[in-house]
Amino acid sequence: MTINASNDSAVSRRLRLGMVGGGRGAFIGAVHRIAARLDDRWELVAGALSSDPERSHLSGQDLLLSPDRVYANFDEMAKRESSREDGIDAVAIVTPNHAHAAPARAFLKAGIHVICDKPLTTTLRQAEQLARLARDSGLIFAVTHNYTGYPLVRQARALVQAGDLGAIRVVQVEYAQDWLATPTEDSGNKQAEWRTDPARSGPAGAVGDIGTHAFNLAEFITNDEVLELSADLQTFVAGRRLDDNAHMMLRFASGAKGMLWCSQVASGLENGLRIRVFGEKAGLEWHQENPNILIFSPLGEPQRLIRRNGPGTGEASRAASRIPAGHPEGYLEGFAQLYSDVAEQISSRLEKRTPNPLSLEVPTVEEGVRGVRFIDAAVRSSRRRGAWISL
Amino acid sequence: MTINASNDSAVSRRLRLGMVGGGRGAFIGAVHRIAARLDDRWELVAGALSSDPERSHLSGQDLLLSPDRVYANFDEMAKRESSREDGIDAVAIVTPNHAHAAPARAFLKAGIHVICDKPLTTTLRQAEQLARLARDSGLIFAVTHNYTGYPLVRQARALVQAGDLGAIRVVQVEYAQDWLATPTEDSGNKQAEWRTDPARSGPAGAVGDIGTHAFNLAEFITNDEVLELSADLQTFVAGRRLDDNAHMMLRFASGAKGMLWCSQVASGLENGLRIRVFGEKAGLEWHQENPNILIFSPLGEPQRLIRRNGPGTGEASRAASRIPAGHPEGYLEGFAQLYSDVAEQISSRLEKRTPNPLSLEVPTVEEGVRGVRFIDAAVRSSRRRGAWISL
Amino acid sequence: MTINASNDSAVSRRLRLGMVGGGRGAFIGAVHRIAARLDDRWELVAGALSSDPERSHLSGQDLLLSPDRVYANFDEMAKRESSREDGIDAVAIVTPNHAHAAPARAFLKAGIHVICDKPLTTTLRQAEQLARLARDSGLIFAVTHNYTGYPLVRQARALVQAGDLGAIRVVQVEYAQDWLATPTEDSGNKQAEWRTDPARSGPAGAVGDIGTHAFNLAEFITNDEVLELSADLQTFVAGRRLDDNAHMMLRFASGAKGMLWCSQVASGLENGLRIRVFGEKAGLEWHQENPNILIFSPLGEPQRLIRRNGPGTGEASRAASRIPAGHPEGYLEGFAQLYSDVAEQISSRLEKRTPNPLSLEVPTVEEGVRGVRFIDAAVRSSRRRGAWISL
Amino acid sequence: MTINASNDSAVSRRLRLGMVGGGRGAFIGAVHRIAARLDDRWELVAGALSSDPERSHLSGQDLLLSPDRVYANFDEMAKRESSREDGIDAVAIVTPNHAHAAPARAFLKAGIHVICDKPLTTTLRQAEQLARLARDSGLIFAVTHNYTGYPLVRQARALVQAGDLGAIRVVQVEYAQDWLATPTEDSGNKQAEWRTDPARSGPAGAVGDIGTHAFNLAEFITNDEVLELSADLQTFVAGRRLDDNAHMMLRFASGAKGMLWCSQVASGLENGLRIRVFGEKAGLEWHQENPNILIFSPLGEPQRLIRRNGPGTGEASRAASRIPAGHPEGYLEGFAQLYSDVAEQISSRLEKRTPNPLSLEVPTVEEGVRGVRFIDAAVRSSRRRGAWISL
Repeated sequence: MTINASNDSAVSRRLRLGMVGGGRGAFIGAVHRIAARLDDRWELVAGALSSDPERSHLSGQDLLLSPDRVYANFDEMAKRESSREDGIDAVAIVTPNHAHAAPARAFLKAGIHVICDKPLTTTLRQAEQLARLARDSGLIFAVTHNYTGYPLVRQARALVQAGDLGAIRVVQVEYAQDWLATPTEDSGNKQAEWRTDPARSGPAGAVGDIGTHAFNLAEFITNDEVLELSADLQTFVAGRRLDDNAHMMLRFASGAKGMLWCSQVASGLENGLRIRVFGEKAGLEWHQENPNILIFSPLGEPQRLIRRNGPGTGEASRAASRIPAGHPEGYLEGFAQLYSDVAEQISSRLEKRTPNPLSLEVPTVEEGVRGVRFIDAAVRSSRRRGAWISL
Repeated sequence: MTINASNDSAVSRRLRLGMVGGGRGAFIGAVHRIAARLDDRWELVAGALSSDPERSHLSGQDLLLSPDRVYANFDEMAKRESSREDGIDAVAIVTPNHAHAAPARAFLKAGIHVICDKPLTTTLRQAEQLARLARDSGLIFAVTHNYTGYPLVRQARALVQAGDLGAIRVVQVEYAQDWLATPTEDSGNKQAEWRTDPARSGPAGAVGDIGTHAFNLAEFITNDEVLELSADLQTFVAGRRLDDNAHMMLRFASGAKGMLWCSQVASGLENGLRIRVFGEKAGLEWHQENPNILIFSPLGEPQRLIRRNGPGTGEASRAASRIPAGHPEGYLEGFAQLYSDVAEQISSRLEKRTPNPLSLEVPTVEEGVRGVRFIDAAVRSSRRRGAWISL
Repeated sequence: MTINASNDSAVSRRLRLGMVGGGRGAFIGAVHRIAARLDDRWELVAGALSSDPERSHLSGQDLLLSPDRVYANFDEMAKRESSREDGIDAVAIVTPNHAHAAPARAFLKAGIHVICDKPLTTTLRQAEQLARLARDSGLIFAVTHNYTGYPLVRQARALVQAGDLGAIRVVQVEYAQDWLATPTEDSGNKQAEWRTDPARSGPAGAVGDIGTHAFNLAEFITNDEVLELSADLQTFVAGRRLDDNAHMMLRFASGAKGMLWCSQVASGLENGLRIRVFGEKAGLEWHQENPNILIFSPLGEPQRLIRRNGPGTGEASRAASRIPAGHPEGYLEGFAQLYSDVAEQISSRLEKRTPNPLSLEVPTVEEGVRGVRFIDAAVRSSRRRGAWISL
Repeated sequence: MTINASNDSAVSRRLRLGMVGGGRGAFIGAVHRIAARLDDRWELVAGALSSDPERSHLSGQDLLLSPDRVYANFDEMAKRESSREDGIDAVAIVTPNHAHAAPARAFLKAGIHVICDKPLTTTLRQAEQLARLARDSGLIFAVTHNYTGYPLVRQARALVQAGDLGAIRVVQVEYAQDWLATPTEDSGNKQAEWRTDPARSGPAGAVGDIGTHAFNLAEFITNDEVLELSADLQTFVAGRRLDDNAHMMLRFASGAKGMLWCSQVASGLENGLRIRVFGEKAGLEWHQENPNILIFSPLGEPQRLIRRNGPGTGEASRAASRIPAGHPEGYLEGFAQLYSDVAEQISSRLEKRTPNPLSLEVPTVEEGVRGVRFIDAAVRSSRRRGAWISL
């Protein structure tokens, strides 16, 4: 019944965070800021918060940033911050998809660790280049597949890794919402606008925005790789330029089979990310909207409701939690976990010690590339009437 | 708060039922008998209960049948019963899949109505021949896709038909169990034996046994037809001769898209038939294991829990129910509904009146053919690496 | 995966049932008839179905009874049936509460087993006299506290008896509905009329009608007795003559404490009978509206979802079930179990053998007396501002 | 789909917070710190973190506090902070129950706003004195009945206030856990030690620790007052010096009736705070462990699942939320809401403007007194065998 020590941290200083994007009117930038703040290991000190300098400036004021650290663009920011004694330890890139690659490159080149939103880039080529650059740099490059930060998602992965499910046979994963069931993008909703715009979102709509999360979650929990997929993408809302629904069949390297469904037109569903994994010895089920329960079903035994930090959980859950069982944690805490894990990675480098191995669960640029590869394969398969495409 | 009058019936006599199959050791035959009995519109009076005459005889004793109406085989039964003054009004055929067609033909030829288990036959050709024979005969031919008898399944169909969901976009249906997660067929389980034996079960395993139910439910609720499908069938248990898991993508005549998953190796699931339908205006969800709730989600309004016979249900639910909301009905009542509906159809013919139109919801030989067509398409698609196959 | 043999019975004849009450317009009589029919161990052959002879006659026609066995009153029925060679084996008394005692006495005196609805009588004195008469007669006297027939209720009792919960500490039981949230009795609803009429219902409303079920369930599952209670009864609907809501605190013989809430004005609840039992070693929870799941919570282990006939259940569940796990059974099956158990008790006497011991779980006249004692104590406690009253 | 502006705040500076208690090994102090941090309106700058000066000092280091603002005791802190230009705006008192009153008095006298944990004090007399002092001071005095900070709890209150439930009839509230089902206090658990120690916890155990939350929640949502109660307190674990389970019947000023159950020995329950409110026109239900759903049941209509920030919610939910529907918020966010509301109250005073009226929902010293009054009444009632005691 104590707060997790590693989260109520005793490091000698807070790490310094900069942000690209996330100015007034943005959504995910504010989430990143709460996430960074929650466990008190980060301090937001700099930003290029908008491509519009005036908006960037005002947004900096909102956030109580020192005016000299509110920059007109990311290039200037990368240059200036890398030359300050008290420059940022890492940058968070929270712009629309098409604007991830350039700042990511700039900060890597400036020797600054990167935390980047997903999907990594809008083309596979960009993604691979970025991955190479990141690898060569030796810097930390985290991609915020934030659902991997949920304690019970990590517990699920730990159960699979411990062999408690036996060989995995079937993976059913889905991510369905309804906020684009009508042409929301025509009513002035900024989020809907860029997410349905190929120029900013890339070649896929629902597949890129949420399908990638589902895909990442499936690979994360199973510790397996999708070898090939067969996809059927659809645009239900007239006039929309990207898919708003997709069905896929999956084949994993291990021999497991699966399905993936993502949709933004599923009337009645809000943020329905759900995964079920069935192995020879047991099955498990987790639902993002009720994230403090993991259903674990050993074959021939009663189903068990494993609750965050409750009986049946171990270090994987505890290390990603703040409070005892029965006190629900949610989306922001899961997101915060990624920030705290990156903080642990950076701190351990600064302090020349081994990081807590659980902090290495954070998705990296490699998972970012997988996501872009997934988008690419899905789009190509659908164009070829569901031909099986290798990833 | 009254028992549904049409179920606590006031007809001038009970209808007479005969049964083919369903002797000692059988499973579904006993379910048919309870179903027939529940609403008191049928009386079991004759049977060819086993292909083994001795077993048939003993089974007849168990059921308190008059010895002269326990037959050694269905041919004799069809002949003798059709010539009796008090001969059976209908026959229930509850044998394994490969043994449906012959008795069905025999009773149709004898002028006796047929209630047949699913899948209708083991080949598409047989199914079509049988359908022709049934059509020509003018007799009633019901196929026990029993899940259509659940009150809230009918309510769901009524909601779709009334336009409350708007145009349907997405259909997610699944039927997953775990009772074949191990090689159960090798341990003397008779049910597992014939269901995994191509000679008795037909060309498909899980697809035929439970996939057909899922398929039927999707078409029943949406009142739509699957135009084509792409399938990936798998056998996970070593040595098994038929599929025990299948993934499919579906395209409906209306333009809706869907997925179907059926599995008998999904560790932790018992009889998990679940369907979700998403339309332009609303979505709905129903789960067989919790059948007294229908989740109805009008876009932009809170989700509603519609309970059997509770607020929000109408004639479709009431006519298929016995007791008030809050008093759960289950599998047997849903199955019984098909028997009561067939009784209503037969009685109305005997009494030369129009049947209650809701009694016509019972799946017929045409739905039986659809099921066999579905099996055929799934098997062929999977063999051709998921090529889209028309039904 | 087979139908329970004891329910798909092989006795040499069906037992003969008579019914008092349950004519046209009645509710529970029809439930009793379905219940008797479901497992095929009973045949309804006689009735005094209404205090109005014409209504009794017409109701007998509805039920296809032989006209000579439709009686004008229960006295005549008791006399005539007891003198027939093929007279009834048992009578079901399904009249309003005030009309239980007289026919029960008549049939006991005629040597006929009795199945009586609850509450047993409207006064404690009547109840005790009846119990004495029943005891002296040596006849079977069942009281249809039908919720004890649910497989998982019996499983719950078995878990407590096996010591899996350790010493019981706390019992929370409730039965809440909303069908009397408005003055339903003024709108011509016959059920509401008699249930809110002291002359027919007795001294209590909700307490007698549903509180007794909750009370019985608590004692049944815990195998313990309530020693004393403190009650606060209330009538919320203006003009109503009996309580429509009651709160009680309970003290059990074992030292356990508990609460009981019953209400007929709980907006949004349909038939919400729910019980939770907490012991030193584990807790359990069961809810009538979702009766195929029993939540079992061993202290310090994950909660387990025990499903009817699924892993973790034993003979107690199996013997009270018809079909495999995942195929939901409901209210009618639970009610039917009582009829089948009484049939087993009677058959075993006829066949001079020991009955299946599980058939003895059916509540008897003694539990009937406990129910009346509970009503009496609740009413008296509430009149004395919640004074603790011994039962 | 934007972050709530009032939570991602644009005030000109962060407010300065001090803390009394909450040093190494404490639980709730760390929760308060996360809560204060989450919405970025507070900065922790000072503390008297332990009654042990060395522990206070080390705890201050952990939290990166300036050494000159880590105090040996609260008296010194109150004096010194009140005389600093940049002194704290408010103090959070997070000590065990018996150590709330003295620091609260000290900071009020120093003119510093107070945020105090619950129960307010260990005696009613202390509570009333403190309330007088707080009233006279004109300062803000918040009591962290944190469950009132959940968006859907506020939505529930708003529904009641808007008359959507009609006159309230029945309130069922409970708060049950199992962490004291064994003598945890004997195994070195600091939390268990002081919470079962009358000297530190006051005259009640479960009743004070969690019963007060349940009581507060009932009064908060119904906007009604409990007039009198009848209680039965129990200690199940041998040797324990305070109650670990309590049952109560409640009577509200409006005429509503209710029950309250609190327990720390309810095997299988983690932090089971649950409330149901039934009115003439509708009912509602909310469960802390699944806090993003509010079940709303208009009489005669289907139950509705109202989700945080989803359809059916309004300003009450939105103002207390950070992220869109479907992205679960939890315990920490609910707690944070109280801090943000207090920040809004203080900021509005500093800025000489009217505060956002929703920020005034935070429980005050008056609710703190109600809680102590509730404890007092419960203990006295139980000693007098459940006599009704006025609050």
